[in-house]
Amino acid sequence: MTEAHNEEAQLPPPLPEGGLRIIPLGGLGAIGRNMTVFEYDGKLLVVDCGVLFPDVEQPGVDLILPDFGPILDRLDDIQAIVLTHGHEDHIGAVPYLLAHKADIPLVGSQFTLALVEAKLAERRIQPYTLTVREGGRERLGPFECEFFAVNHSIPDALAVAIRTPAGLVLHTGDFKMDQLPLDGRITDLAGFARLGAEGVDLLLSDSTNAEIPGFVTPEREIGPVLDSIFAKARGRIIVASFASHVHRVQQVFDSALEHGRKVALIGRSMVRNMGIARDLGLLNIPAGLVVGLDEATSMPPEQIVLMSTGSQGEPMSALGRMASGDHRHITIAPGDTVVLASSLVPGNETSVYRVINRLARAGAVVVHKDVAKVHVSGHAPAGELLYLLNVVRPSNLMPVHGEWRHLRAHARLGIESGVAPDRVVLCEDGDVVDLVEGRASLVGRVKSRYVYVDGLAVGDVSESLLTERRILGDGGFIATTVVVDSVTGKVVAGPTVSAKGFSEDAAAFNAVIPLVTEALNRAAADGITDPHQLQQIVRRTVGRWVNDAYRRRPMIVPTVVEV
Amino acid sequence: MTEAHNEEAQLPPPLPEGGLRIIPLGGLGAIGRNMTVFEYDGKLLVVDCGVLFPDVEQPGVDLILPDFGPILDRLDDIQAIVLTHGHEDHIGAVPYLLAHKADIPLVGSQFTLALVEAKLAERRIQPYTLTVREGGRERLGPFECEFFAVNHSIPDALAVAIRTPAGLVLHTGDFKMDQLPLDGRITDLAGFARLGAEGVDLLLSDSTNAEIPGFVTPEREIGPVLDSIFAKARGRIIVASFASHVHRVQQVFDSALEHGRKVALIGRSMVRNMGIARDLGLLNIPAGLVVGLDEATSMPPEQIVLMSTGSQGEPMSALGRMASGDHRHITIAPGDTVVLASSLVPGNETSVYRVINRLARAGAVVVHKDVAKVHVSGHAPAGELLYLLNVVRPSNLMPVHGEWRHLRAHARLGIESGVAPDRVVLCEDGDVVDLVEGRASLVGRVKSRYVYVDGLAVGDVSESLLTERRILGDGGFIATTVVVDSVTGKVVAGPTVSAKGFSEDAAAFNAVIPLVTEALNRAAADGITDPHQLQQIVRRTVGRWVNDAYRRRPMIVPTVVEV
Repeated sequence: MTEAHNEEAQLPPPLPEGGLRIIPLGGLGAIGRNMTVFEYDGKLLVVDCGVLFPDVEQPGVDLILPDFGPILDRLDDIQAIVLTHGHEDHIGAVPYLLAHKADIPLVGSQFTLALVEAKLAERRIQPYTLTVREGGRERLGPFECEFFAVNHSIPDALAVAIRTPAGLVLHTGDFKMDQLPLDGRITDLAGFARLGAEGVDLLLSDSTNAEIPGFVTPEREIGPVLDSIFAKARGRIIVASFASHVHRVQQVFDSALEHGRKVALIGRSMVRNMGIARDLGLLNIPAGLVVGLDEATSMPPEQIVLMSTGSQGEPMSALGRMASGDHRHITIAPGDTVVLASSLVPGNETSVYRVINRLARAGAVVVHKDVAKVHVSGHAPAGELLYLLNVVRPSNLMPVHGEWRHLRAHARLGIESGVAPDRVVLCEDGDVVDLVEGRASLVGRVKSRYVYVDGLAVGDVSESLLTERRILGDGGFIATTVVVDSVTGKVVAGPTVSAKGFSEDAAAFNAVIPLVTEALNRAAADGITDPHQLQQIVRRTVGRWVNDAYRRRPMIVPTVVEV
Repeated sequence: MTEAHNEEAQLPPPLPEGGLRIIPLGGLGAIGRNMTVFEYDGKLLVVDCGVLFPDVEQPGVDLILPDFGPILDRLDDIQAIVLTHGHEDHIGAVPYLLAHKADIPLVGSQFTLALVEAKLAERRIQPYTLTVREGGRERLGPFECEFFAVNHSIPDALAVAIRTPAGLVLHTGDFKMDQLPLDGRITDLAGFARLGAEGVDLLLSDSTNAEIPGFVTPEREIGPVLDSIFAKARGRIIVASFASHVHRVQQVFDSALEHGRKVALIGRSMVRNMGIARDLGLLNIPAGLVVGLDEATSMPPEQIVLMSTGSQGEPMSALGRMASGDHRHITIAPGDTVVLASSLVPGNETSVYRVINRLARAGAVVVHKDVAKVHVSGHAPAGELLYLLNVVRPSNLMPVHGEWRHLRAHARLGIESGVAPDRVVLCEDGDVVDLVEGRASLVGRVKSRYVYVDGLAVGDVSESLLTERRILGDGGFIATTVVVDSVTGKVVAGPTVSAKGFSEDAAAFNAVIPLVTEALNRAAADGITDPHQLQQIVRRTVGRWVNDAYRRRPMIVPTVVEV
């Protein structure tokens, strides 16, 4: 295995003529912000441009973007952005990239483009788009692209094969290999076999479930489980799922029809996405089945299903508001059955279980994935990845879309299936891989920070700022303010001490005031008048005291003002 | 179902003569800080006294204790603290209760008491103890206690039946019903049947897995899985588990012996607990199997197993330090196999997966519960709970040990198995339940806050303080300092603005200074000189500006000093 272990940026050498360069700017090392840049003959092709959702280590952050730094001065070279499917971790950063240059063409399937266009419309960006479908081919500059159907937890997902004189590269996008999918659109293993026969020089493939042995349960086994829940429910049914999981919503529609219930869609993205899916013929809505929320709330509970967002415990989502009793129209009551028909995205466990407990507290029966088979993953586990590897027989493998544990597990599968160990390129965001004369190898690194979106601003939140937030979040702060004479350094007012997030017991922590006064007196006696030095003295005095008295580490905020 | 829905404390009426009062002070509404107080004829019996570990909603907190408030003025009435087993969520708060009165007798099995004594020794408390075992009976004041073996993820766990003239109560403690446990010590279903025949008036039973259908996998199925991992491993093996899971450690010892490896124990609690287990004959250590860490590090990697703490991703644990490269003696290297033979306690997912990724990054193969059957739960799922309910046939059921979702699921199982719905008491910490004339009912509430331990202090961290921490942790703060003349209210120095955790871009946020100056000038013109009022003006000015300019919500910290 070729492995990236260089922590320091080591800029790559110039790309040899006839070589293809691959730079993952996101998606390797974390599940999210997927983005891969391909370079051939001075031209660039981008595959996916998604966001990563923050975890507890990124407090207060709304979104994490790929670092566009390495391509910002080459935007004119970008031939297109190919979008494999419409999930946020693949399309969510498109508006931020188009903010730099609005006319980069977007290439994707009908449903994918419809979702990204809806997102761009909110920012008044009208993109240049090129709709493609499975079986299609497009020449995008020097990149000859061929598209293949893949089965995933959103309709109309594509893999893309990229041909250049440097060789044939297959990027799977996200996929699984449900052999009996609801829409009959299976992952095109036969097409991949044809590519394999032609000779795939490099395979980039989804690693999300590479650690998990075996095969994914067919999506259609969810239907009967939903049916039995619907059969048992005596009152209202509320189902939450991802707002883009058209097939899951279809199954809810089918069960509702079967059990004589109407469905109301709840949540802005749910309503919008299902409208798009219906218009494109991807969602079959029997006449009269869907009703508005107003009508739904006036109907007897046993005749209604609410199809909602919020399956990941998001507090501001429709389900999150219902759970905390803050939804304007819906109050959870005994007799309600709530189904969370979704996976549990790692990092969301605490919020999801909080929502479940609140729903249970309000009297609802809550069915979730620990309790019944109401969700299956959208990503191929190890057994399916081996099928793909054995059919494609790639010369080089680059695991993508995963945390380090997933990428490494996928690398092992590659080697077990016969890829030469020195042709498995295990790398992470910012690594630069060149495919030259049929061999992929790591040649350097470009800068690839996490770029944080927080409120309206992008990029003013750094890692050291997040460290400050973590310190403040864990221990609060103690602020000490003192006014000194600018000439003599003598204390004119203060010191005063105030604290937030540190301790309720102000009488106890005011005990530090005499210590600060004493330290300042000593400083004055020593002729120290520089406010910066005085600030350091205050900081040390308070810091030492709080450690001895409390064994806590609040942020110490000394302010010395000169008058 | 009798259900607690009163948010406001509604003090209970006096306990009727001949009645038994039950007050859960912890363990109902969250998994942890288990503690139940029984009262009869003016005397109290406490069952368990544990801690709860904080989640992201309790930043900076070390531990959460039960609220001892309702019994603090009645410590002399406490006949004993019965400890069902030695897990932290059942014994961890004992030192904090004994800090109020050191001579309350502790009653428990040999292993349980040994663990709690080791914990108390660190605080130089030597408790009064009474060792009991399954089959034994003890009269503790008016409480006639009988002890029963239960099978759990720690040896020597007990259930306790409490007889008073008010009736027979069975408290299961934590249990599962592995029918072929490694030590042959099964949950005493036959004994419970005898109690059932006698007539159990109230059952308090473990709800942790009440949502999960079916039965737990026998513990002995882990052995072969470990064996196959050991057989495949070519280099060093590191196994992490709970430091009290003696049977899991025994299995690791057995596999090590089988595969010709020596074992070194790593982590203070692992070494201590396994020493206790060996001394009590609960852990069988073949001669020469266990070596010191020094010896282990000098041996060839294929001859060694390191048995470590840190299975929950704790950054300061032995495994946590190895993962981050901070362990003094052990450096993870390619060829290492790391096994996390443990459950994933909800709330710990992010840290556990971070440790796994770091280990994978350093080259280790990591086997965890998603990948192989290296752990089974210690708590009975629904299928086993039904066995218990059907054997005991309690007149009243009070689900304990669980979040709300678990308690409710357990309540449903109770009703399905034939407990009268109005005899199922679904309640939470602080609720007061009286058993009078064979009927258990909710009669009121006592105060039951979360009591936070943070560093050396207990109880000075409140919910509103945690809210401050969350605000600071999500958005940092902007501090504005201004010195004004105490007579005229005119600005003498400042305003200055500083920020932590808010934005790197100081030039941008200094834009607020002229706005603050302007607001203060206006205040001066209006004759406002009160520093508190001026502070509010500064707060409003900065708050409005930051919302408009950033759409963020940092804490606004205005300081107005008079000279």
